Amino acid sequence: MSTLPDLLPGLLTDEAARDAVATDRSGHRPATLPHGVVRARDVQDVVDTLRWASAHRTPVVTRGGGSGLAAGASASAGEVVLDLSGMDRIVDLRPQDQVAVVEPGVITAHLDAAAAEHGLFYAPDPASAAYCTIGGNIATNAGGLRCAKYGVTREAVLGLDLVLADGRRVSTGRQTVKGVAGYDLTGLVVGSEGTLAVVVGATLRLRPKPLETATLAAHFDDVVAAAAAAAAITAARLQPSVLELVDAVTLEAVDAARGSSLRSLGAAALVVQCDGRGARADIDAVAEVVGPFASSWRATTDPVEAEELLAARRAGLPALEATGDVFIEDVAVPRSQLAAAVSGIQAISARTGVRIATIAHAGDGNLHPIVVVERGGTVTEGPPWDAACAVFDLALELGGTLTGEHGVGLLKRTWLARELGEDSLGLQRGIKAVFDPLGILNPGKGI
Amino acid sequence: MSTLPDLLPGLLTDEAARDAVATDRSGHRPATLPHGVVRARDVQDVVDTLRWASAHRTPVVTRGGGSGLAAGASASAGEVVLDLSGMDRIVDLRPQDQVAVVEPGVITAHLDAAAAEHGLFYAPDPASAAYCTIGGNIATNAGGLRCAKYGVTREAVLGLDLVLADGRRVSTGRQTVKGVAGYDLTGLVVGSEGTLAVVVGATLRLRPKPLETATLAAHFDDVVAAAAAAAAITAARLQPSVLELVDAVTLEAVDAARGSSLRSLGAAALVVQCDGRGARADIDAVAEVVGPFASSWRATTDPVEAEELLAARRAGLPALEATGDVFIEDVAVPRSQLAAAVSGIQAISARTGVRIATIAHAGDGNLHPIVVVERGGTVTEGPPWDAACAVFDLALELGGTLTGEHGVGLLKRTWLARELGEDSLGLQRGIKAVFDPLGILNPGKGI
Repeated sequence: MSTLPDLLPGLLTDEAARDAVATDRSGHRPATLPHGVVRARDVQDVVDTLRWASAHRTPVVTRGGGSGLAAGASASAGEVVLDLSGMDRIVDLRPQDQVAVVEPGVITAHLDAAAAEHGLFYAPDPASAAYCTIGGNIATNAGGLRCAKYGVTREAVLGLDLVLADGRRVSTGRQTVKGVAGYDLTGLVVGSEGTLAVVVGATLRLRPKPLETATLAAHFDDVVAAAAAAAAITAARLQPSVLELVDAVTLEAVDAARGSSLRSLGAAALVVQCDGRGARADIDAVAEVVGPFASSWRATTDPVEAEELLAARRAGLPALEATGDVFIEDVAVPRSQLAAAVSGIQAISARTGVRIATIAHAGDGNLHPIVVVERGGTVTEGPPWDAACAVFDLALELGGTLTGEHGVGLLKRTWLARELGEDSLGLQRGIKAVFDPLGILNPGKGI
Repeated sequence: MSTLPDLLPGLLTDEAARDAVATDRSGHRPATLPHGVVRARDVQDVVDTLRWASAHRTPVVTRGGGSGLAAGASASAGEVVLDLSGMDRIVDLRPQDQVAVVEPGVITAHLDAAAAEHGLFYAPDPASAAYCTIGGNIATNAGGLRCAKYGVTREAVLGLDLVLADGRRVSTGRQTVKGVAGYDLTGLVVGSEGTLAVVVGATLRLRPKPLETATLAAHFDDVVAAAAAAAAITAARLQPSVLELVDAVTLEAVDAARGSSLRSLGAAALVVQCDGRGARADIDAVAEVVGPFASSWRATTDPVEAEELLAARRAGLPALEATGDVFIEDVAVPRSQLAAAVSGIQAISARTGVRIATIAHAGDGNLHPIVVVERGGTVTEGPPWDAACAVFDLALELGGTLTGEHGVGLLKRTWLARELGEDSLGLQRGIKAVFDPLGILNPGKGI
């Protein structure tokens, strides 16, 4: 089976182990299995693996929770998977500095929970927070619901401990909130999808937990009205911490999954959350802006009722996944183009006959059109993929980007040149060669 | 005088023009004048200059308002200065997207004023906002008073238009709030001090102007108590938009300049501003935390009175500059080390006999120790420089960095290897070579 030397300590080559790390949650399934997997327990395991891989010119696919949505961690024959999910210690949490130092395999929600014990929180909150890892979040520059107000992973990462492709260790960034000594290697590695170096430690910024929170859910006769209301909130210079849009297809799936009747309230919903000391007054201001667009709305400062209002959003993706296989897109457009984007997506769905649900982080113009096919169907080929590509087209036409927070991975790679242009790609390839001259780190992904 | 071909259109070589662009506000004065200066009016001027410079292997020092504090834009014989201060158009300002597109020569305060007409603001506000440029802010990743809450320049830059060393044009980033397509070239160029490319345009994020503001000034018997009070504000998880510390030396200079009697109120002051809908309640909470440390404090929501309270901070640097020549340091430490840093700086001043005032962005641990010498004295050599170096030492010992927001420039370059280490510097030199293989962009600065 293998033409590679099996001298790497800890390399697991049994089929079950290889199968478990072959892909992510994108819907992509490589035609072959990877050569083997190393379940790293500490930095030395990572160093040993990369030295071995450099010596043998063997590609290494680094992996965290396997929750990626762009096939960024999929691995095939001839590749070794470096699984960091076992490096899951919160090494240090300094409330007085509002900083945490963690290993890459820490589950995002676990860090948030540890911070909460000190009245703090970790801002990036991807929908996969319960099972994705900080290392994976760094690889894709993950966002989430709260990043409309608090920024994405890049804004939360102060410094990184890296192992380079040849096994050398390098630290980037700093322990301080500010710093500009040298080029921003930290920001360069964030979002680089495992192609520049392996992250073995991260110094992360925590934030004070807001004192108050207020939540509003509004329903609309059509999704364009909901998008217009979202734009009006931004135009009114209100700054919710959460501003999420859910379309009719998603509401129907949620109703089916939960026995609710959200769809009867309208063909689209917005869920808005404001936080901080003026949260209640802010949500009242939101209601005033949203009211004229909405068929109905409801606001609350009660945490239990707030969770109920958020359910339409939080339950959306699992509910859609219960109805078939999905490919979750991740385009972003200028905020003023949100309504054009959602109506464009509806038109693509109508024209192609492919079922597309839309959930959007409306606060920052980041849409997740979700292509749904019958269970066991193929999302990344044929008509569903053609429809997905039409959405990419639409996003670029509206001045947007292919990926707001999920990364390029394998699936969007052919689209990248069109967004970036050849000169920019040339610089990026040059940077890749500086970090990884042998090209062994996650080849074929990202740039 | 010149061994360089004078064929570059628009190159000014008269002594007055060359003298005007020879250095910045760091106190550093190169021994020779640059070869000449091009006052660019548009992108084509920049392209022409860089093509000519590449063809003739001539170093180019790009320059904005000349307000730098690390000699990042100082230029010497054999170098051509590219002055972008004339490219000062706000090209587009889209309130609905909260985005501005600007040329690099736009004065920072002008952009903020233009945004204010739409109820928005541009967050980075270096003390030099009235005469520094966006391009210079990008070169140094400038911060300011408000970045404790709103982040530094890197957080405000969505995309850049660049001219590469060989004259090619490349755009980075995006028009959207979020995006992760390809490596973060935008973040890489921010803070690169003109060594990677020339910024000819920037897409910047604007933010909603806060609805309410409340301000507090507190005075303390000694600077360590003030630093402890600042740390206590952070520990109480309050998040002021401004949290500034001013020491006795600065207060004395302010009193001398303005005829006030701030020094009589104590040996140090904190100026705190909270904004947003809960501003008044937040400042009351700040007062409760600060009270036990302070000898006196005063809070207000009146804008005129607030400016008076801020004066101790805003007038500090000009007042010190009125007493002699200065070198403004820019170290940053973990927030919990602020008190250790300020007392360490006092000890250095006492030991060396060099006058050092300290102003600090206490909210993010960024200190500006200001070395003051007699008018016409030299700051960057002899005992004053030795004292400055002792402060660098101190910052690194406390887990901090050489520069929070002013950049490395020429003056801190020898210190950089100690902070970053050789492997990190090696990567940075590799990146530099990808962007600027001939090494013509601001050689000898930054990394």
